[in-house]
Amino acid sequence: MNKVDSQLLVIFGASGDLTARKLLPGVFVLHQKLLLPHNFCILGAARTQHTDEEYRLLMKDHLLEELKDKICSPALVDSFLKRVFYLSFDSNDSSDYAKLKEKIDILQQQKKLEDRILYYLATPPIMYERIPTFLKENGLNVTKTHDGWRRIIVEKPFGTSLDSAQRLNKHLSRIFQEKQIYRIDHYLGKETVQNILVLRFSNGIFEPLWNRNYIDSVEISATEKLGVEKRGKYYDGAGALRDMIQNHLMQLMAFAAMEPPSSFDPERIRDEIVKVFRSLHAYSEKEMNSLIVRGQYQGYRNEPDVSPTSNTETYVAMKMYIDNWRWSGVPFYIVTGKKMSEKASEITINFKSTPQQLFIGQCSGSSCNKLVIRIQPDESISIKFGLKVPGAGFTVRQVGMDFRYDSLSSESLPDAYERLLLDAMLGDSTLYARSDALEASWSIIDPILKYWQENGEKGIFSYDEGEDGPTERRTLSIPKETWTCELNNK
Amino acid sequence: MNKVDSQLLVIFGASGDLTARKLLPGVFVLHQKLLLPHNFCILGAARTQHTDEEYRLLMKDHLLEELKDKICSPALVDSFLKRVFYLSFDSNDSSDYAKLKEKIDILQQQKKLEDRILYYLATPPIMYERIPTFLKENGLNVTKTHDGWRRIIVEKPFGTSLDSAQRLNKHLSRIFQEKQIYRIDHYLGKETVQNILVLRFSNGIFEPLWNRNYIDSVEISATEKLGVEKRGKYYDGAGALRDMIQNHLMQLMAFAAMEPPSSFDPERIRDEIVKVFRSLHAYSEKEMNSLIVRGQYQGYRNEPDVSPTSNTETYVAMKMYIDNWRWSGVPFYIVTGKKMSEKASEITINFKSTPQQLFIGQCSGSSCNKLVIRIQPDESISIKFGLKVPGAGFTVRQVGMDFRYDSLSSESLPDAYERLLLDAMLGDSTLYARSDALEASWSIIDPILKYWQENGEKGIFSYDEGEDGPTERRTLSIPKETWTCELNNK
Repeated sequence: MNKVDSQLLVIFGASGDLTARKLLPGVFVLHQKLLLPHNFCILGAARTQHTDEEYRLLMKDHLLEELKDKICSPALVDSFLKRVFYLSFDSNDSSDYAKLKEKIDILQQQKKLEDRILYYLATPPIMYERIPTFLKENGLNVTKTHDGWRRIIVEKPFGTSLDSAQRLNKHLSRIFQEKQIYRIDHYLGKETVQNILVLRFSNGIFEPLWNRNYIDSVEISATEKLGVEKRGKYYDGAGALRDMIQNHLMQLMAFAAMEPPSSFDPERIRDEIVKVFRSLHAYSEKEMNSLIVRGQYQGYRNEPDVSPTSNTETYVAMKMYIDNWRWSGVPFYIVTGKKMSEKASEITINFKSTPQQLFIGQCSGSSCNKLVIRIQPDESISIKFGLKVPGAGFTVRQVGMDFRYDSLSSESLPDAYERLLLDAMLGDSTLYARSDALEASWSIIDPILKYWQENGEKGIFSYDEGEDGPTERRTLSIPKETWTCELNNK
Repeated sequence: MNKVDSQLLVIFGASGDLTARKLLPGVFVLHQKLLLPHNFCILGAARTQHTDEEYRLLMKDHLLEELKDKICSPALVDSFLKRVFYLSFDSNDSSDYAKLKEKIDILQQQKKLEDRILYYLATPPIMYERIPTFLKENGLNVTKTHDGWRRIIVEKPFGTSLDSAQRLNKHLSRIFQEKQIYRIDHYLGKETVQNILVLRFSNGIFEPLWNRNYIDSVEISATEKLGVEKRGKYYDGAGALRDMIQNHLMQLMAFAAMEPPSSFDPERIRDEIVKVFRSLHAYSEKEMNSLIVRGQYQGYRNEPDVSPTSNTETYVAMKMYIDNWRWSGVPFYIVTGKKMSEKASEITINFKSTPQQLFIGQCSGSSCNKLVIRIQPDESISIKFGLKVPGAGFTVRQVGMDFRYDSLSSESLPDAYERLLLDAMLGDSTLYARSDALEASWSIIDPILKYWQENGEKGIFSYDEGEDGPTERRTLSIPKETWTCELNNK
């Protein structure tokens, strides 16, 4: 395996929630796994006033709380925190960047760091343009040595429309090259998501079935039991389509649908992802009504920081088509919602039934054979198939066969951020979105958002908590909701 | 489901082991499951002197011992035994059949049985010709009413060569019609064996892969840890090829290899079985040396009732080919042996690997994807496939996914004889061998037996207990023995 180079990780937004709950715990685990080199440091930068020592103490509490018994020894926490530094700094103030530069220089010298810097924008989206601009103004976007480098990780949401995504891409491309820009999608950091590619392309038994000849439909869903909670301000401006579908679920779709890449090189995989998005069938206005159902849960408008006249969707179910040779005519059902009956993210491949029905009790339609990839929780892969009911005759019953990730080892699966941070440190962009793919996915989503905006409240359906979305979704005939056979053995 | 007609089951060899250990326990379970009609009786016939009552007491002990806690109530045993009758009778003596006829007449009258008789030949093979002859001489092979019937179940071995099997078929066909003759193969009574057909033909996901394009090889094996034990006399005259392969393992092969039948009618399934046997590649003399390995375990010649110069094989491994469109070029490895390291019967489908290797740790050859149908013990179906090793990179590891039959219910699977007896009572011959299939399988086996006989000791290799057969088997490259990847998760 490749080794992480000596480098400095600079986190903007270092006093925020994401840093405390995900980023530092992720880097700590890499430290604990001995994946970081001796000369590796982290510099947190944010407006709050802290000394290095105060920041370390604060982060220590967070680490202990977040990781609990995943920490092998308290000494590891202390040795990790010695690598952590802090700078009180206003990322909005151009003149403060000289201070940043100075601190970086000192750290690089004192800690004998190579001239390699990974920036992490764990800030509100408004800063995604500004920080890079100021970095450039202070020469912090370029390296001083020929084997040094600069990379930048940009958090989601990357744009809120095709236009804004394009603008942001254009802006960043003036400061960094495409290969230096890492657009994060934490869904891609999940083991079960990466495993879609391994499952498909390392096994001879799935790929021959993986096309319109044998697959009836594909369902990709991510549901939550919770409502917007404290995220009303962000969410009311975003909605489910932007928050879940444009990024996470469309990436899952690309992994499930893409052609085998010519090699496992990051660029070759990203080539295939963009091909899927470019083959997506664009919705006509009529199709936006017939193939997409949006909903808003009862009580959403009374949530904190939500407009009392909000038309923001908290539920979307859409039937998408990929117009290419592999998938022509196979519906991809994308479903997401808040206040649903279950918290679950999964991909279900519904296979076609046999051309003939030979047995009593045999299923028909798409409910016989399924491959379910459970992304979270209870990460697993299961196959549903027909088996003989023990005893006389040849009666068939649907049963399931599971592989649960927790059977692999007693260790829990690595956190998505741990994996993604490591990849960015290594310079592997496989699991990060490329600008062309991002724009291609926005170009499908954007017309829908515009159409909805024109229609205002018209066409947004209400649903109660736990109802699994508005009843109007039934017009889509989502297979999961229309199964006729019971799956007795889950 | 069909119901069992009123009938009389006549068992020849009623004082033998098979009757006590398998047949009566099997019928008892059918009684306990309320699958037998009110007017159903069993008549045991054998040379030993017993009254009905003595025979019942004897059988009661056997039932309690064999079935133990599977018996729901002692009252059921008593009500069952009231259906059991006994006749002291010499099946070798033609004149004794008048006694049999009389007893049958009395039972039919007293117990108000319809004129339907199922004969079971649980006797030494030498009687398979004689008993039917005497039945005919006494008019016991024909029915007196238009809705009555006669059926006859013949135990294995059905012939010891093509010639003797043909002679026996010819003889029986003068006394019974083919549809009245039930040639038993208790392997076909096993749930897991019947399930091969359901698995293949009720699921859309297996059949597309089930051919030479995607399957590298098929292994069918049945191994035992024990030696010949008390069966030396029979076994030394039979050998592993006759005892296990000609019947059991070739039937398994037919189930695994056959084309989808036009319907699930017994005759249509048997049509497909015979087609497989007729497509089997006949061995040339050269191939008998290069594609078949036979062995004899160390110490076999000292076993009780075994000739001290015996050349009988206790191990056979053979590579068979089915010369048809589906299977051309795909080796079927048939392996059986005594004194092996494990007692297990299973079918393994080895799928071809992917056309390209994209990942580190990916298997090559036939060891990547397998479907293992475990017939006994621990009846199960498992799929082996490549999964991503959690953590950095995209390293692949082989894992397994199991479906265990014992997860279906707390009840144990029905015994093979229970199923087969029920089928014969119902007139369903799906799981019984038809004369043409039997002769077709003998016509492959017969030349091998002759060739071995000509060669005497030459070409029979010795092996030690637990060695899994003679080392010469390695020339066949049986996939199971040449796997390079570890299956870590079984």
